[in-house]
Amino acid sequence: MLCVGLDPDLDLLPAGFPRSAAGALAFNRVVIEATHDLVCAYKPNFAFYEALGSEGLRALEATLELIPAHVPTIGDAKRGDVPNTARLYAKALFETWNFDSATVSPYLGLDSLAPFLAWEGKGVWVLCRNSNPGAADLQDLPTGSRNEPLYARVAAMVRDAAARAEPGLVVGATSEDELIAVRRIAPTMPLLVLGVGAQGGSAAAAVRTSTTGPAVISVSRSVLYGDDRDPAIGIRSRAEALRAQLHGLSAGVVSA
Amino acid sequence: MLCVGLDPDLDLLPAGFPRSAAGALAFNRVVIEATHDLVCAYKPNFAFYEALGSEGLRALEATLELIPAHVPTIGDAKRGDVPNTARLYAKALFETWNFDSATVSPYLGLDSLAPFLAWEGKGVWVLCRNSNPGAADLQDLPTGSRNEPLYARVAAMVRDAAARAEPGLVVGATSEDELIAVRRIAPTMPLLVLGVGAQGGSAAAAVRTSTTGPAVISVSRSVLYGDDRDPAIGIRSRAEALRAQLHGLSAGVVSA
Repeated sequence: MLCVGLDPDLDLLPAGFPRSAAGALAFNRVVIEATHDLVCAYKPNFAFYEALGSEGLRALEATLELIPAHVPTIGDAKRGDVPNTARLYAKALFETWNFDSATVSPYLGLDSLAPFLAWEGKGVWVLCRNSNPGAADLQDLPTGSRNEPLYARVAAMVRDAAARAEPGLVVGATSEDELIAVRRIAPTMPLLVLGVGAQGGSAAAAVRTSTTGPAVISVSRSVLYGDDRDPAIGIRSRAEALRAQLHGLSAGVVSA
Repeated sequence: MLCVGLDPDLDLLPAGFPRSAAGALAFNRVVIEATHDLVCAYKPNFAFYEALGSEGLRALEATLELIPAHVPTIGDAKRGDVPNTARLYAKALFETWNFDSATVSPYLGLDSLAPFLAWEGKGVWVLCRNSNPGAADLQDLPTGSRNEPLYARVAAMVRDAAARAEPGLVVGATSEDELIAVRRIAPTMPLLVLGVGAQGGSAAAAVRTSTTGPAVISVSRSVLYGDDRDPAIGIRSRAEALRAQLHGLSAGVVSA
């Protein structure tokens, strides 16, 4: 259930790692070696690589080479563009970088998601209700005659549009009521739950979404960064602790 | 008023250009040499470069070097992420790649836009009402007690949030009523008008938005690609024709 975000933030890298694309890659190598037997997926967020320019994207490409073939990858790009352009973003994520799945933004509507949804053998996570405080600005707006919040419309739109294997939805663990509401609208869809840890989201709330359908719980900062003498040991021990916590919560949910 | 999109689509490049990052760069060089005295800005869309991997991003960096310093650049990235990550996307666009302005997506709310809006000396274009048919799926949804469409809420939200120099809004010329509605909500805000040409948007509708505030009209496919014996001549002649058309329409609007 535990996914680790591969988000090398130069301001937070442990001592000894150069503040460069090479340092980001070296750090990712440590993270992957320390956690590859503990995770269900890795999720690099593109912002951390783009901040380093094309060198950063090369470090991302080298990072993808380091991930064992049996561990799925989630390209956290949150792309969204008109269909002709979305087609090229899908090609970038699914063909050029060969991610197993990718995150996309729904603001431009279903035809903008279609190139992703139609791609054979790849997964799609559509942003639904995010974890940041400002997510409420638009996502919680009541819409239509039944005053459904926008995020609920997105969940239903994606659920109803899925012709082939079910796409997933991105939800934030920081807003528990909305998480439960999304699970009610889409009982069996996979959920990618973000915001546990540094953003203040609750692991318990995240796990409760896994009762009727699968949930992938992605954590970045609270696994990657600590006051570590040996980063590899620190990262592994935080990942193990979180995995055990999720496992325990999950057992509680199933037995309840 | 005319902005040209630097969108090298390998499927559409003229004969003689390699189907590679090097070919994309060579094509961009021709486009820039043929049009730099005709445009108010250049707008590379990231999807065309990302489809080519880190090599593509290197071609984008080399392309930016070719643009004369006095011609503003618009990084068409449509990024949108939680604040901690949006900060790094802003750094990528405004510092690493040094774009003069960038497009962003509003789905995650105001705090996700803040790192862009707060960046001194850089412009921001927030997606408002896009040009693709599917844009209506969410953007036209009636919201709140006054049944305002979502795009109108976005326009008002961005207008009211602008503490410093006014940000701009992205609108599609394919939906004229919505374009006019946005202009009414935000009379003086700069508009980046997309969808004229290949997507079927009307140049006349686009120009009518420039009466009370500035409009930048960006065109890609219908300038870049034609049945050209000499691409440089073809591209320049299409850009000149479009510029003359916009100029003529604009004179009509001012005198009307």
